[in-house]
Amino acid sequence: MTKIILATRTFREEFYQQINAIDPEYQVVVDDGQTTIPWSQVAVTVGWKTDWDAHLLTTDSNLKWVQAISAGVDTLPLAAFAQHQILVSNGSGIHAQSITDHLLALLFMENRGIFKAIQLQQQQKWAPSAIPYAKLADKRILIVGTGQIGQQLAKSLAFFGVQSFGINTSGHPVAGFTETYALNDLIPEARKADYIINILPLTEETTHIYDQAFFDQLKTSASFYNVGRGPSVDTKALANALQAKQLAFAALDVFEEEPLPSDDPLWSVENLLITPHISGHTPHFQKAFMAIFLENLDAFVKHDKLTKNEIDLSKGY
Amino acid sequence: MTKIILATRTFREEFYQQINAIDPEYQVVVDDGQTTIPWSQVAVTVGWKTDWDAHLLTTDSNLKWVQAISAGVDTLPLAAFAQHQILVSNGSGIHAQSITDHLLALLFMENRGIFKAIQLQQQQKWAPSAIPYAKLADKRILIVGTGQIGQQLAKSLAFFGVQSFGINTSGHPVAGFTETYALNDLIPEARKADYIINILPLTEETTHIYDQAFFDQLKTSASFYNVGRGPSVDTKALANALQAKQLAFAALDVFEEEPLPSDDPLWSVENLLITPHISGHTPHFQKAFMAIFLENLDAFVKHDKLTKNEIDLSKGY
Repeated sequence: MTKIILATRTFREEFYQQINAIDPEYQVVVDDGQTTIPWSQVAVTVGWKTDWDAHLLTTDSNLKWVQAISAGVDTLPLAAFAQHQILVSNGSGIHAQSITDHLLALLFMENRGIFKAIQLQQQQKWAPSAIPYAKLADKRILIVGTGQIGQQLAKSLAFFGVQSFGINTSGHPVAGFTETYALNDLIPEARKADYIINILPLTEETTHIYDQAFFDQLKTSASFYNVGRGPSVDTKALANALQAKQLAFAALDVFEEEPLPSDDPLWSVENLLITPHISGHTPHFQKAFMAIFLENLDAFVKHDKLTKNEIDLSKGY
Repeated sequence: MTKIILATRTFREEFYQQINAIDPEYQVVVDDGQTTIPWSQVAVTVGWKTDWDAHLLTTDSNLKWVQAISAGVDTLPLAAFAQHQILVSNGSGIHAQSITDHLLALLFMENRGIFKAIQLQQQQKWAPSAIPYAKLADKRILIVGTGQIGQQLAKSLAFFGVQSFGINTSGHPVAGFTETYALNDLIPEARKADYIINILPLTEETTHIYDQAFFDQLKTSASFYNVGRGPSVDTKALANALQAKQLAFAALDVFEEEPLPSDDPLWSVENLLITPHISGHTPHFQKAFMAIFLENLDAFVKHDKLTKNEIDLSKGY
């Protein structure tokens, strides 16, 4: 019986051929909302849709493996996957260069005063002395999350002579970071930092980890960037802190509610840059994703296991 | 008789001491508009002011050397310096990292869609699919001017896997550039480029080198950045080309008239970023400048010559 790889989106023809070359028993079906899906034949999914829960998280389901497309898997029903012994892998690594480039854009813009220059242009005002400038290497950068994105960022910053300080769960050392600290030390480390960059996955522990008590402790000259997950930030607390100039600037790519409603007061906070969850948008995405998927498919077919990016369901990342 | 180093600006006390250590006969006088200047004792200047022409470019002047602060010396009376056999050196190299950082800010901003995101934020619009994204390494970057700034930029771009194509007077090869071409080949090379970055010094040859005929030839998706000199660009032609979408975007840090008048229509051209001649603003500027000046002063005192950044007055750079 044909085994189905159920996907949320289409891929280029060459990838279907590569899947076929690994095992011709597998056939890709894209859930476009119109195709009838033979649920009992679904062995693998690429991505996940909420309405699949009812069909695939049942006792008679044959689903064995979910390959997520994103790095974050917080929106997936992980507990149910664990209960049904379904393997889960993510797209970690694919977006690392894009998110790094996004963060470098922000860091260089701030250090060369481009945000201020844009405001002055809108006022048709020539005021070079009002524009701040600094050398990134003189700044203390705290990267909260030392996974593939954090490491890629630290590597790029090192090229510019910038040291990176990292935070991860246990404070274990990570290549490319001058020092790493445990999540418990977030506040004392953030207090010293000029830039605090959140790239943490969303878990119970990281929900609203950036709250009023956190923002209260920052330097008034500090900037906070979030390219991790929206609910890690108490957005109201951040907006208040920005308006009170408790910190200088923030850039958010992710939000507690997405899309951000068009009447949200956040849009017009002056010292806040809003980008609509774009930092992970990646050219050549299919190629990078398929490299992970095909390697996993090969291991899955031959040995019933995954070799790339498997999620520890007890941890959630 | 005390020899005077006439300066346009003050420097930190430690530098006066270092000058004294090289030769105690030299004394720094800052022209603050109030101090009476013993013109006949001026042997060296740091920077230049237009009203010095009448005092120092005379037959009884003892001026021997002008150390410019900027890299560009196009605003100085070079012909008169040549006539009076006055040595001239510039500040080339000091601003290379700052200008590189400014250009990287622009390049990463464009490639991550941040300019578009800022516009969408102003409209309170969540529209991720309207925001372009690209990988810098897929772009063709033409750096017009392969001096210290161009080389520094090419080196940084290489770290990100980006090839740099260069233009200089003769097309001679320069380390860090995949290919270099002569100024005569500007138009055919610009035609292929995604980014054209001007860092040329201003000379007769480079005045209005970027004119209507030039902009007509660009890809409609191309961007043009100018961090060189304002008069290299026919600004009206550029504004027309931007409005006609003959090119996608421009960023100007220098202008034909500076300050740009507050009623100049340029301020509100939508696909143009204006920065008020800030790309060279450099942290630790005094230290970097004094390293050049003190090395030159030592050679000047001992051997009547300069060893750093001497200008060829016949070329103008």
